[in-house]
Amino acid sequence: QTNIDPTPPCVGGATTMELYEQLTAQGDKVRSLKTAKADKADVDAAIQLLLKLKVDYKEVTGQDYKAGCPPSGTAVSNDRQSENGGEEDTVDPWNVATNSAKGVDYDKLIVRFGSSKIDQELVDRIEKVSGQKPHRFLRRGIFFSHRDMNQVLDAYEKQKSFYLYTGRGPSSQAMHVGHLIPFVFTKWLQDVFDIPLVIQLTDDEKYLWKDLSLEDCHRFAEENAKDIIACGFDVNKTFIFSDLDYMGSSPEFYRNVVKVQKHVTFNQVKGIFGFSDSDCIGKISFPAIQAAPAFSSSFPQIFKGRKDVQCLIPCAIDQDPYFRMTRDVAPRIGYPKPALLHSTFFPALQGAQTKMSASDANSSIFLTDTPKQIKNKVNKHAFSGGKDTIEEHREQGGNPDIDVAFMYLTFFMEDDEQLEKIRQDYTSGILLTGELKKMLIETLQPMITAHQENRKNVTDEMVKQFMTPRPLNFNF
Amino acid sequence: QTNIDPTPPCVGGATTMELYEQLTAQGDKVRSLKTAKADKADVDAAIQLLLKLKVDYKEVTGQDYKAGCPPSGTAVSNDRQSENGGEEDTVDPWNVATNSAKGVDYDKLIVRFGSSKIDQELVDRIEKVSGQKPHRFLRRGIFFSHRDMNQVLDAYEKQKSFYLYTGRGPSSQAMHVGHLIPFVFTKWLQDVFDIPLVIQLTDDEKYLWKDLSLEDCHRFAEENAKDIIACGFDVNKTFIFSDLDYMGSSPEFYRNVVKVQKHVTFNQVKGIFGFSDSDCIGKISFPAIQAAPAFSSSFPQIFKGRKDVQCLIPCAIDQDPYFRMTRDVAPRIGYPKPALLHSTFFPALQGAQTKMSASDANSSIFLTDTPKQIKNKVNKHAFSGGKDTIEEHREQGGNPDIDVAFMYLTFFMEDDEQLEKIRQDYTSGILLTGELKKMLIETLQPMITAHQENRKNVTDEMVKQFMTPRPLNFNF
Repeated sequence: QTNIDPTPPCVGGATTMELYEQLTAQGDKVRSLKTAKADKADVDAAIQLLLKLKVDYKEVTGQDYKAGCPPSGTAVSNDRQSENGGEEDTVDPWNVATNSAKGVDYDKLIVRFGSSKIDQELVDRIEKVSGQKPHRFLRRGIFFSHRDMNQVLDAYEKQKSFYLYTGRGPSSQAMHVGHLIPFVFTKWLQDVFDIPLVIQLTDDEKYLWKDLSLEDCHRFAEENAKDIIACGFDVNKTFIFSDLDYMGSSPEFYRNVVKVQKHVTFNQVKGIFGFSDSDCIGKISFPAIQAAPAFSSSFPQIFKGRKDVQCLIPCAIDQDPYFRMTRDVAPRIGYPKPALLHSTFFPALQGAQTKMSASDANSSIFLTDTPKQIKNKVNKHAFSGGKDTIEEHREQGGNPDIDVAFMYLTFFMEDDEQLEKIRQDYTSGILLTGELKKMLIETLQPMITAHQENRKNVTDEMVKQFMTPRPLNFNF
Repeated sequence: QTNIDPTPPCVGGATTMELYEQLTAQGDKVRSLKTAKADKADVDAAIQLLLKLKVDYKEVTGQDYKAGCPPSGTAVSNDRQSENGGEEDTVDPWNVATNSAKGVDYDKLIVRFGSSKIDQELVDRIEKVSGQKPHRFLRRGIFFSHRDMNQVLDAYEKQKSFYLYTGRGPSSQAMHVGHLIPFVFTKWLQDVFDIPLVIQLTDDEKYLWKDLSLEDCHRFAEENAKDIIACGFDVNKTFIFSDLDYMGSSPEFYRNVVKVQKHVTFNQVKGIFGFSDSDCIGKISFPAIQAAPAFSSSFPQIFKGRKDVQCLIPCAIDQDPYFRMTRDVAPRIGYPKPALLHSTFFPALQGAQTKMSASDANSSIFLTDTPKQIKNKVNKHAFSGGKDTIEEHREQGGNPDIDVAFMYLTFFMEDDEQLEKIRQDYTSGILLTGELKKMLIETLQPMITAHQENRKNVTDEMVKQFMTPRPLNFNF
């Protein structure tokens, strides 16, 4: 697949895309200094830096910097349909696609995005600092990439705390188990680090991107909030907000949105997100709205006006473009860069190279599925890495790397030894596909039933409480 | 001058720019229907309308419609500096320029913008409907152009009321007499029609466009509010708001902003405002924020949720591009189009072809000037239409059409007969330049002193009251 997100290899700490964006910003700065007839010394200094950046850029890319043209080999397609044909995986906030049954090549993605791998050393360090056994998502590489996590831990060890920010785009009432991944992990982080959490529901984004009314998007946000609350978040440490509501209730939030909007050009969002001239102006300016919650001053009710509290964002890797932009802008508006923890994608039942779709009930296990539906879906639709006949399977064994039932168990089965035994038995052929699927069914059924019980206990009053801007139980 | 605002002659009710924008919108619609795999009948109907619009467009412009290319003969310069050389006046929200000492040719502007002239018939009708002598700005063609004013009066006669919306960009603390024009006229409209008024202070816009901090822009908004309040607005019928504050206090306002943002593409704002790819995303999406107050549902505290109250916008003609865009979007999001009353520009002391500048204290009379400063400025800087020597002047007479002192009297002297006598005496040479300037000085000094007295009486408490979202004394 082509259509890749335009962030090329990391060179000398900065990706070429970051260099490109720095250059664009510096060019803007020189121009505005000239327009404002600034001091000659200031203009000269800005030009010097611009020239230095141009030299760096040429060194790294082998090409001359050209305004409006992101580094080549990183072409952005304006076509939002993924017309695949090339070799690389597609990963951006609207498209994830790969030709491999194993799913996206995450090691390549780390190189391309210029992030860092979560290695055993970092997992061990999280264990040491938190004093807790690492979450299975960390043990199994489901959260596999990060930015600045060591810095967050350094500060935490010195009693300098941080806050968590994650979110969801409420495009429908239906959520599937994959949607829970960031929330399950974020709850674990909240518990082990004892820190506040903000959860953004981008109902405005969904209105701008989809053929939905504002009212529907807002209703979906409230419905999704119930599923999120059902994950067990502590109301005293968690603020969930709809953009449509919070923008209109917090002058500080809007101020940060405008600050980001002033420091990002159309050229930049074109390079990062592939927007085109026929996109609506709402889409073009939206990235600033996803950026703003990464700054603690957007929540004065929680952080009492402090603008220097570091933010840690657990999210799926496809959201990284938003936060690369955010990290680029942060120092220019006087805020710390948010740190990130990136997760892999949750595969569709039909296989890791297919797309899950909220409108296709068979593409995943939904949080509203009955035990019977779960059983039928897994048995009927979960792509198998097993062989065609029992005889062949016993002889050659199955392939867990492309088996969706096994992949799902990796996400949801807590016991490492049991999971490893399943992997070995499946690979050797001792375990048949039907037996593997049965184990998944027996893992999912009680999990979903428990979620449904929890959700039933989430009252409108509780939703209102979580979604009301208020101080959280936290002292810095 | 070139650099004109890209709205060509009005043809058959719609300007070619409006046609162009309709076409662009319809193209977007067809595309989104196709993407959404809509009903074939719907897609076909949309394509039929698209084709029809293309035929109309070709008929009117003699050219084929091409997406992203506004009608030619209406080229937009991306250069925000006005490099003039051509023949036409420059009029857009950031630039007003003309080569004529008489100022901009307003009759041409009416044709180019596709608005309607405020003729004697309309002035008489306003007198009849309001039961009041028309304001001198109407009597003298200072408010010279309109959109849909007859419709507003038709409805008013049937007891269907409307509201007023005007505004100001608070780029500094200093306001000059020219800045008062829309407010003086709006106060008159409020009084004679007894209707509510909202006043937008676009502090977010000034932050985005100027090298100013958010805090400064917001402070300028509050300082400017004092000068506006000093014009005598009724607190029970007037709501003044800073965008930075109101956006963060009204979910309904933000909802309308997002609605507009969804229905305007970058192509459109590029065509209307001349934005380029290196403009920040805040500028690109800002027009939606100036559009939203034209819809009554942006102020639920005033209009109790009604979304159908007609809006009338008195403003200088350079703001028209914002409201052409607003009128284009309105029916597509289910709101009535706002009506408009356009004023001419207030000339700089140095002459109608020069630009007034808040940073050049000598370019106008400021609201903070002392009587002595007023006297000195008028005598020293007001461009004169008189002759070089008294003898010549007595013999040939002066030219009031290019005389700034006379122009200012047209704005501020209430007595029509006195003004006409001055015109005749100046033209005939009976009245000398010094005498004319003295009359202006004697008109301005008490006016400015009175304004300063009024402003001194505007307390912080009053500012807070005007700027608090609240119900107004009004019943529909």
